[in-house]
Amino acid sequence: MLGNKINFFDKYSKIFKLWHPHIIAEMNDYQFKLVKIKGEFVWHSHDKTDEVFIVISGQMTIKFRDRVVDLSENEMFVVPKGIEHMPVAKNECKILIIEPKGIMNTGDIRGELTVDKETWV
Amino acid sequence: MLGNKINFFDKYSKIFKLWHPHIIAEMNDYQFKLVKIKGEFVWHSHDKTDEVFIVISGQMTIKFRDRVVDLSENEMFVVPKGIEHMPVAKNECKILIIEPKGIMNTGDIRGELTVDKETWV
Repeated sequence: MLGNKINFFDKYSKIFKLWHPHIIAEMNDYQFKLVKIKGEFVWHSHDKTDEVFIVISGQMTIKFRDRVVDLSENEMFVVPKGIEHMPVAKNECKILIIEPKGIMNTGDIRGELTVDKETWV
Repeated sequence: MLGNKINFFDKYSKIFKLWHPHIIAEMNDYQFKLVKIKGEFVWHSHDKTDEVFIVISGQMTIKFRDRVVDLSENEMFVVPKGIEHMPVAKNECKILIIEPKGIMNTGDIRGELTVDKETWV
C-alpha cells in the first residue's frame, strides 16, 4: 500500500555518521539511500551494477582513475558498473544514492568504512 | 564508459512541453526523466512497476483514490505498482521521475498526454 512521503532534510537531520548510507525508500528491487559525506572515501567499484549519485546539498567530487567529476546541488552522475571511483568532499555534502538492493557501499573492497547491515532512516 | 554530469536546471532550460518526460540518464535498465508539470494529468496506473517522484522545484500533489499527497522541493514519493494516481500542480513544478525503461507515462490509459516516443534532453 501507500507509504509516506519522504522529506530529504527531515531524514538528514537523523543521520549523524559520515559515509553511512541510510535507506529511505525502495522502488521494485532498487533502494534510495541518503548519505552525509566529508573527506575521502575509498577506491572501489561495483562489478554488477551502475550507481547514481545526486547531490542534494553541498559539493562533492567523484574521482576516477583518468578523470575527476565535480558535482554541486541539483547535479547527478551515473557511475557505470565496473568503473573504479572514489567519492570525496572537502566540506560536508548531502547526497542521494540509487542502486539495487544488496549493494555493498565499498563495492569490491572491505574496510573500516564498509557497512554490512542495512540501515533505514 | 563515463558519461557527462547532469545539471537538472540546465536540462529543464531545454524543456518546453508540459507533462512530457525527457530522459536524462539510464542506470542499468532504469531511466531518469525530468518533467515540467502544470495543471492536471490523467488518472492512470502502472501494473508492473513502482514509480518514484522527486520534486526538484515547486509544489505538486499526487492524488490517489483515497488520499492526497502534497510534495515540495526535496521531497519524494514512491507510487506502488498497480495504484491509480493523478499528478496535479497548481503552478509549474519541476520533477524527476525514476522508473524502468519502456514505461508509458499514462500507464494503462492512452490519450492526448500519452508520449510514445522516447525523448532525451
